[in-house]
Amino acid sequence: MLDSTSGASFSARLDAVAQETEELLDRLLAPSAQPDEISRPRRLLDAMRYGSLGGGKRLRPFLVVESAALFGVPRANALMAGAALECVHCYSLVHDDLPAMDNDDLRRGRPTAHKAFDDATAILAGDGLLTFAFDILSRPETHPDAEVRVRLVNLLARASGIGGMAGGQMLDLAAEGRFAPTAGQVMSEHDVATLQSMKTGALLRFACCAGPILGRASPDQAAALNRYGIGIGQAFQIADDLLDVEGDQAVVGKATGKDAAAGKATMVQILGVAGARARLQALVADAEKVLAPFGAAAATLISAAHFIADRRN
Amino acid sequence: MLDSTSGASFSARLDAVAQETEELLDRLLAPSAQPDEISRPRRLLDAMRYGSLGGGKRLRPFLVVESAALFGVPRANALMAGAALECVHCYSLVHDDLPAMDNDDLRRGRPTAHKAFDDATAILAGDGLLTFAFDILSRPETHPDAEVRVRLVNLLARASGIGGMAGGQMLDLAAEGRFAPTAGQVMSEHDVATLQSMKTGALLRFACCAGPILGRASPDQAAALNRYGIGIGQAFQIADDLLDVEGDQAVVGKATGKDAAAGKATMVQILGVAGARARLQALVADAEKVLAPFGAAAATLISAAHFIADRRN
Repeated sequence: MLDSTSGASFSARLDAVAQETEELLDRLLAPSAQPDEISRPRRLLDAMRYGSLGGGKRLRPFLVVESAALFGVPRANALMAGAALECVHCYSLVHDDLPAMDNDDLRRGRPTAHKAFDDATAILAGDGLLTFAFDILSRPETHPDAEVRVRLVNLLARASGIGGMAGGQMLDLAAEGRFAPTAGQVMSEHDVATLQSMKTGALLRFACCAGPILGRASPDQAAALNRYGIGIGQAFQIADDLLDVEGDQAVVGKATGKDAAAGKATMVQILGVAGARARLQALVADAEKVLAPFGAAAATLISAAHFIADRRN
Repeated sequence: MLDSTSGASFSARLDAVAQETEELLDRLLAPSAQPDEISRPRRLLDAMRYGSLGGGKRLRPFLVVESAALFGVPRANALMAGAALECVHCYSLVHDDLPAMDNDDLRRGRPTAHKAFDDATAILAGDGLLTFAFDILSRPETHPDAEVRVRLVNLLARASGIGGMAGGQMLDLAAEGRFAPTAGQVMSEHDVATLQSMKTGALLRFACCAGPILGRASPDQAAALNRYGIGIGQAFQIADDLLDVEGDQAVVGKATGKDAAAGKATMVQILGVAGARARLQALVADAEKVLAPFGAAAATLISAAHFIADRRN
């Protein structure tokens, strides 16, 4: 386990990236239009800012920054890639909260975007944030080498699309019995793992793979970060399932007990609470193992694995 | 005006690109997952296919192919860029048709995606198609040079996002008086031109700029195609406004008379029918002028300008 010193240091590093990401997104989403843009309609910009600023741990940008730091990538480049990834994450929250989807009124303790604005504006704000992610990634400020930028674009598109996050949300709606042919089907552990690796795992994995791409790491190094990313993605979702069962709504910042109410299979249901906790331990141990070749340089990423497994909100 | 021979040839060229685009999208949206994808959930894939296959003139891919042909770009590369652009166009139709947006039940004579599936699936299918566009553009099959691909990604993101199409849809909803501060405001010709240049103009302009990028054209050549693209975008929308006033719903394939019903300002309302027709003529004349340096090679693009101005659906 971590001692209190490294814990404090970890928390400070996480907060620093959160603040830098906030400042960067605030600047990128300024009212003045960029070259090639005719204007930035105010209502849409406000909704995109509402959906992406002022909240969240910024865990994904943090993982981009820390995975990039291993390979000596300038922090400004990593923060751009992290901001792009955060735009995708935030778009997914705005769309998932819509009445037609999960119908949530509360997100991070604030009204969801469609409550603060309206459904049409929230749909467009999500579309706008998703599109903006690829605008950011493709700019020279993200990396001077076009080959690096276009690899990031392709990997983020794959992680976000039908074979990743969007596909995972589709499976999640089906798991709630929303569509006739799937209603009442019992999900296997494999089914749940597939759903989770797509819905939440794909973006976390991208975060950890972005560093090696930005830093032109060796194939072995890239493979280690890829495996680390897959593992913490699994840990993140198991911790999320535990929070849904055991968490306090006031601390978690969103409604809890929803999975059971929706009749949805989770890893906790399949493995039991003790089994889920054992799985978390194994995933953290594996993260430590795959990062061992990086030595002390990977200490923060190892702390991140503990943080994700132990999180309370 | 065109003689019947070139008219027939134009129509054959347009149909050829439509068929090639259909075949390419059908292949790209196959059930088998791509590398790095875990799976392609069937319901989401079906909805993405429903929203993008089996209809449309494929005008945007056609403009990509023809603008690329001017610079000797291999047709396979242009078709990939065209397919990406068509994914963005189709996503925008799926989202714009949603009950929370324009609430349309009919599109190209078929039920809209949310009618054929459900609202949640249609939202995700739109998200999936938008994301897929950047997947396609960033693949080496689109162009061997990463610098070219990443320029296309950036230009498409700008054309599609808050400073382009999504922003234009926001202005369009506001023009219908959907939001209190804008309700009842009279739009100037400048306001209408801005809305239209963003909502529909930006993607048509991208189509014409894609060729020069794929073909590494000179700045003068790129500027000519950019101006051509802006002009045909304006012509497209004026023709659309005329169709909304004068068109036959059975031929147009969607509801007509909607602008007046929504109290929305159009170029036809501002310029009158005769004034709108005169503007169309001027735009076509300008298209002929800016393409004159390309000589006979630009004949099809000039036919396209006539086609857009004269279209009946």
